[in-house]
Amino acid sequence: MAIQEDHFKKVLSHAKEYGYVFQSSEIYDGLSAVYDYAQNGVELKKNIREYWWKAMVQMHENIVGIDAAILMHPTTWKASGHVDAFNDPLIDNKDSKKRYRADVLIEEYCAKIEAKIDKEVEKAAKRFGDAFDKETFLSTNQRVVEYQEKINAILSRMSKSLSNEDLADVKALIEELEIADPLTGSRNWTEVKQFNLMFGTQIGASAENSTQVYLRPETAQGIFVNFLNVQKSGRMKVPFGIAQTGKAFRNEIVARQFIFRMREFEQMEMQFFVKPGTQKEWYEQWKQTRLKWHLSLGMGAENYRFHDHEKLAHYADAAADIEFKFPFGFKELEGIHSRTDFDLKAHEQYSGKKLQYFDPEENKSYVPYVVETSVGLDRLFLAVFSNSLQEEALENGTSRTVLRLPAVLAPYKAAILPLVKKDGLPEIAREIFEDLKWEFNVDYDEKDAVGRRYRRQDANGTPFCITVDHETLQDNSVTIRHRDSMEQKRVPITDVKAIIKAEVDVKNWLQRM
Amino acid sequence: MAIQEDHFKKVLSHAKEYGYVFQSSEIYDGLSAVYDYAQNGVELKKNIREYWWKAMVQMHENIVGIDAAILMHPTTWKASGHVDAFNDPLIDNKDSKKRYRADVLIEEYCAKIEAKIDKEVEKAAKRFGDAFDKETFLSTNQRVVEYQEKINAILSRMSKSLSNEDLADVKALIEELEIADPLTGSRNWTEVKQFNLMFGTQIGASAENSTQVYLRPETAQGIFVNFLNVQKSGRMKVPFGIAQTGKAFRNEIVARQFIFRMREFEQMEMQFFVKPGTQKEWYEQWKQTRLKWHLSLGMGAENYRFHDHEKLAHYADAAADIEFKFPFGFKELEGIHSRTDFDLKAHEQYSGKKLQYFDPEENKSYVPYVVETSVGLDRLFLAVFSNSLQEEALENGTSRTVLRLPAVLAPYKAAILPLVKKDGLPEIAREIFEDLKWEFNVDYDEKDAVGRRYRRQDANGTPFCITVDHETLQDNSVTIRHRDSMEQKRVPITDVKAIIKAEVDVKNWLQRM
Repeated sequence: MAIQEDHFKKVLSHAKEYGYVFQSSEIYDGLSAVYDYAQNGVELKKNIREYWWKAMVQMHENIVGIDAAILMHPTTWKASGHVDAFNDPLIDNKDSKKRYRADVLIEEYCAKIEAKIDKEVEKAAKRFGDAFDKETFLSTNQRVVEYQEKINAILSRMSKSLSNEDLADVKALIEELEIADPLTGSRNWTEVKQFNLMFGTQIGASAENSTQVYLRPETAQGIFVNFLNVQKSGRMKVPFGIAQTGKAFRNEIVARQFIFRMREFEQMEMQFFVKPGTQKEWYEQWKQTRLKWHLSLGMGAENYRFHDHEKLAHYADAAADIEFKFPFGFKELEGIHSRTDFDLKAHEQYSGKKLQYFDPEENKSYVPYVVETSVGLDRLFLAVFSNSLQEEALENGTSRTVLRLPAVLAPYKAAILPLVKKDGLPEIAREIFEDLKWEFNVDYDEKDAVGRRYRRQDANGTPFCITVDHETLQDNSVTIRHRDSMEQKRVPITDVKAIIKAEVDVKNWLQRM
Repeated sequence: MAIQEDHFKKVLSHAKEYGYVFQSSEIYDGLSAVYDYAQNGVELKKNIREYWWKAMVQMHENIVGIDAAILMHPTTWKASGHVDAFNDPLIDNKDSKKRYRADVLIEEYCAKIEAKIDKEVEKAAKRFGDAFDKETFLSTNQRVVEYQEKINAILSRMSKSLSNEDLADVKALIEELEIADPLTGSRNWTEVKQFNLMFGTQIGASAENSTQVYLRPETAQGIFVNFLNVQKSGRMKVPFGIAQTGKAFRNEIVARQFIFRMREFEQMEMQFFVKPGTQKEWYEQWKQTRLKWHLSLGMGAENYRFHDHEKLAHYADAAADIEFKFPFGFKELEGIHSRTDFDLKAHEQYSGKKLQYFDPEENKSYVPYVVETSVGLDRLFLAVFSNSLQEEALENGTSRTVLRLPAVLAPYKAAILPLVKKDGLPEIAREIFEDLKWEFNVDYDEKDAVGRRYRRQDANGTPFCITVDHETLQDNSVTIRHRDSMEQKRVPITDVKAIIKAEVDVKNWLQRM
């Protein structure tokens, strides 16, 4: 765990030092839980977004895109349930003046009991060796069974969408369990209050005739309200999908873990409209398709796992997360949700408009069911960045920092380096640069010794270094150095473009799916 | 004018019918001055953005990108002057209850006098024929001179950033000029009030400990506050630029003309940091470079003109617009502004941090001057879309609707059409589709007679139609039809990809600059 925390610290400092992520408005000491993407970060983010868009929209004849506005008619959020139920239950400690999510305090309490169960299991496994059967142990060991019953009892008293009556019960629960402020140990708590996570603002000219609107807390609703317009103008036939990337905003109370949970973030969502009754098979198919997409980036199958939801949101009949092994453990990267016809029906009800599809094969109209795939772009950025950042011991006893970004996502595809700043080498290097820049983002670097430049490009994630040296003057060849293997090969200048292209081309990466 | 208005109406209906732009939240009767980009619109918008990004960032070694958050520390907007001076002066008519921008009412009054001047000029030009000299006439004809003096007198009483004292004077001016509500003729006006155009929202957990923040009204400040972080981590040397595309928000009172002036819009900005004293030459250079970029799209040099500002904003020492001929006349498409060191100095003052660059050649530190290029992405979308939409009379006496989008920007690069839905033609068409989709966005269409499909693809802006017919079965050839000329050529299937690529490749278009 210490190693992981240490790694996470390195991720943060490397992100700043190499121009990937800056704290927002840093000169004003930042805005909490908001970050800016810097000169390399913006390219990595763009490349991830494009890799997703190509896979989802360009590759699928029956998926089209959309770009709906962040500001929407406020009734949208009545229909979706966000105005009434997109709340966090908050509790303040009267002594420390610190504010907590009441449900998180209780979950953390349960997590401590779970840790005790894990310890019992570990001890027993050691004691019984090969004869140990975990399932049997969990269901028969009295202490463990009691722990589990306690957790179940606590969880059964919490409900996912907490009504106002439940709030008093949550407070009672916190008192019964003697949960204390983790910072100060104080048990002097206020009542629990609901807090809506949407950012509100006023649209229109004055206080008297303005309208309360919201910054969208998710991009999905922009797809649902446009469903029929897209279907009709695009002559789409069910099953079909609408994909969207864009910003969403949540006024998170406890925002943390760098860009993992931000108040302003970007989603990449696809809503797939299917015939009622077929949603389960599409749900299974999209789970597999989306996992394959992640795996195509080559970041190691062992870093991904499915987490199937047992408790379902009110709109879902099945839901799973694709989790990724972040520096702080396995966490949600993407959600795949079978959302039923909940959203379209709610919009029908609130708008008074029919949102039905006429199915020519069935010769009848129906409200389609929806299977959603939803990735956090910033989370995926963090997954890629943190997984790629490695300290590598070298044969000569030294070490290097290398950012092993999938080449298709790297901000710069190559750096062109003249070995020395004389003898006509910079001129040739520049010619190569001027030629390659039409194809990809390339860097030109002539400062410092070449070894130092290699290290800099390694740390920046650039997959290739092209070095122009005195041999180049003889035979128009250069060395091409691979970031990951550090191998250098001599190749004709005329081959360079094709060599790089083969390694960075989106097409070649998508074909791994 | 009637023809232009009629054309603008066609633009609006075509944008909806062909899935380019929808009213936002249309099922809830829309949100005023906010629009959604539909399935084709999102692709056109993405392609415009990418064409700009490649030209600005990928092609320029000394320009890098950034993607700053929409939410920024609120002091940013004190420093930039937006909190105190980003206001519109509003006036209500007490009878009609309609609200107007007071300065616009006065400008419209002046425009009417200008129309009278134009009429006098026209009459005189007819009377004097070839002997007519406009300049002489304007400076000697008494009536015209009086008109012009009246306009000058009015304008001299209005100032760009209206202080509270001026507001009373603006009201007095409206009364003196006897300006009436254009809708009702009533002259029963309220006082003039300032109205800040920024959208505000609260960040943080509760009313007591939350912070007032704003949705950024421009993307530029996100660049300025990050200037030093980018310069240092990117080892940039002055002159260098930082480019950004992203959303900005303004609570416009009178938002209109479709996507030309929206409350939520997207900017594509580049701030170029230069040595003080060199700003004028960079300003001139960027004016020319940006115009060349627009011209590379091939939409007709006659549709662009420069408008040099005489009145300058408080931060500028030179400013010009590139105007485009929209369906409603020549209007600003892009602004090029020499912003001096106003912004960086203001942020130094408010943050207490130095924002200086150490110039190794000069061996001293200074706050750079800034030259800004700023395009409205939505405006550019409207320029491209409205200019491309044409009704064309055909030789056979009929007509067609064709959307002559620059091929590099078209949502679909080609449509693959089997002539009939039998004889194995759909199978071959699909094979071609499956091959091409790895390279570009392509459409597959087998419904309706082929002539009708051609018209549909014309109206959708698709530059090429590839038709598979019975001859294809014999010799593996297809016809390739060009949208603009309607010419059809027979080519081997194996040539199709290269033919399309040559016409749609960003590289080939940028080389026209």
